[in-house]
Amino acid sequence: MSAGAAAPCLPAAADLRDVGPRDGLQVERPLTVDERARLIEALVAAGLRRIEVGSFVSPRAVPAMAGTDRVLERVGGRDAFQAVALVPNVRGAELALAAGADALTVTVSASATYNRRNVGMTIDESLGQLERIAELARDATVPVDVVLSCAYGSPYEGEIAPGEVARLVDASRRVGAAAITLADTTGMATPRGVGEVAATVGSDVGVHFHETRGTGLVNVYAALQEGITEIDASLGGLGGSPFADGAAGNVATEDVVHLLDDLGVETGVDLGRLLEASALLRDLLGRPLPSAVAASGPRIPVGARHEDR
Amino acid sequence: MSAGAAAPCLPAAADLRDVGPRDGLQVERPLTVDERARLIEALVAAGLRRIEVGSFVSPRAVPAMAGTDRVLERVGGRDAFQAVALVPNVRGAELALAAGADALTVTVSASATYNRRNVGMTIDESLGQLERIAELARDATVPVDVVLSCAYGSPYEGEIAPGEVARLVDASRRVGAAAITLADTTGMATPRGVGEVAATVGSDVGVHFHETRGTGLVNVYAALQEGITEIDASLGGLGGSPFADGAAGNVATEDVVHLLDDLGVETGVDLGRLLEASALLRDLLGRPLPSAVAASGPRIPVGARHEDR
Repeated sequence: MSAGAAAPCLPAAADLRDVGPRDGLQVERPLTVDERARLIEALVAAGLRRIEVGSFVSPRAVPAMAGTDRVLERVGGRDAFQAVALVPNVRGAELALAAGADALTVTVSASATYNRRNVGMTIDESLGQLERIAELARDATVPVDVVLSCAYGSPYEGEIAPGEVARLVDASRRVGAAAITLADTTGMATPRGVGEVAATVGSDVGVHFHETRGTGLVNVYAALQEGITEIDASLGGLGGSPFADGAAGNVATEDVVHLLDDLGVETGVDLGRLLEASALLRDLLGRPLPSAVAASGPRIPVGARHEDR
Repeated sequence: MSAGAAAPCLPAAADLRDVGPRDGLQVERPLTVDERARLIEALVAAGLRRIEVGSFVSPRAVPAMAGTDRVLERVGGRDAFQAVALVPNVRGAELALAAGADALTVTVSASATYNRRNVGMTIDESLGQLERIAELARDATVPVDVVLSCAYGSPYEGEIAPGEVARLVDASRRVGAAAITLADTTGMATPRGVGEVAATVGSDVGVHFHETRGTGLVNVYAALQEGITEIDASLGGLGGSPFADGAAGNVATEDVVHLLDDLGVETGVDLGRLLEASALLRDLLGRPLPSAVAASGPRIPVGARHEDR
């Protein structure tokens, strides 16, 4: 592949994390443990090496995530990939570690109002809880990734100052976060915001975008241009509200891999096999997925592509 | 607005052309002449200054475009905007000029197979016809914009060499095209392709992208980074097949204006009024539109935005 002379420099490779089995499925009609495990296995077969397999939250609050311990058991001996579990609190972390999660994600919001409304805590209280989770995880030699929600804006406060994001990144690292993911929880990120935050926080973070306002893939592209290489995506573009025509879903793994393939950014993911996982997800849910590439197919059919374009 | 230090340079302003009343509506259940005129008036009220108001094609082939002459008559005295009409041939050009179109668009495909299947001509025959249309238009002092379809790839030939695109751009200009728009007819453009073609053809062209594979807005961003400032968009993101969940629609004017506003690229379009036009379109069609911003609203509510962010 030869980029145009004026094309901006992009990293040679990116490291995708598929959050579909958690962020995608949590708002769907619950799938069975077996169905969730098959989906994860299909993602592994496609080459995904980091997969958020579920969360350890109240099954009453999020019925679709009940039985994540059994999902972890089912996908068993995991040389092939890192099984990530989202935990909302210390109790969830204990359960996830007992179930053998390879890594934990913990959400802290950059929006004080969002944090209070969603977990009933101040940001500092969330950081305190993160510290306790990180201590537990350290004993189990399991890394904790802090997902900093509303990092590109809040539906309550509006703009979030990049300096505040930087403060929370530093604070999270101080209390034991092994990695940070900046999440655009409600689809407020734009390439401007991505650039402004990267200028303050640096590129040693992951990013997590939604398509709420159609900017998800633009933000992925802008993040790559900033040298950011850890990218969350969700098989099928699931996520957000299932009642909003998929408009609020995560960036679709299919669409991200399709774009990065074309840009020559190596992901290690096989698009053909990923589309098989996507078809499985569609069949399990019984409806079309938001992903544009899942709907329309790749620009050049898989198998017919020039290897040395 | 202050872009991040590392943010790529973008042009200060972009010039949008809304193709919704033509490219969007042509695949929909026909609206009345009055409804089409109201829609165009709503776009003008929002600040759109170039609008493709319809086409002069066979009403049997495209029933939704019947009566474009009466639409032109209805939107009358046009100091406020340029009313563009698509014409497929010399007869269509005669009708459009007689009806008082301010500018003509003529499509020539960069894909030989696409051109043959869609208009039954070789590319050279299409260029010959363009020359005759351009002569007619010159006598009426009306500019002709050549829309070069499949400029970023063809569903038949696959990749189209940028050199071939450049050849057709030159040939079109030689026979009288006042402007060129590079169109991604079937959603095959990517930032790589946008960069490669711009490196060969330059930035003195317009661009026309579809969301078939989710890359429409990324391509708009990449085109801006290449210094391209003439951008087609379609109110609501209509276009393509109405039977494909809107997946193949044009980039939505709402989504483009929302993005460019945030990037500080001036469009002259008022997003609040544009969303009123969008609501009118939704009501006329009686269904939600593909545009993400139409569905989710702006990231910061109109009226609550910082003017000097």
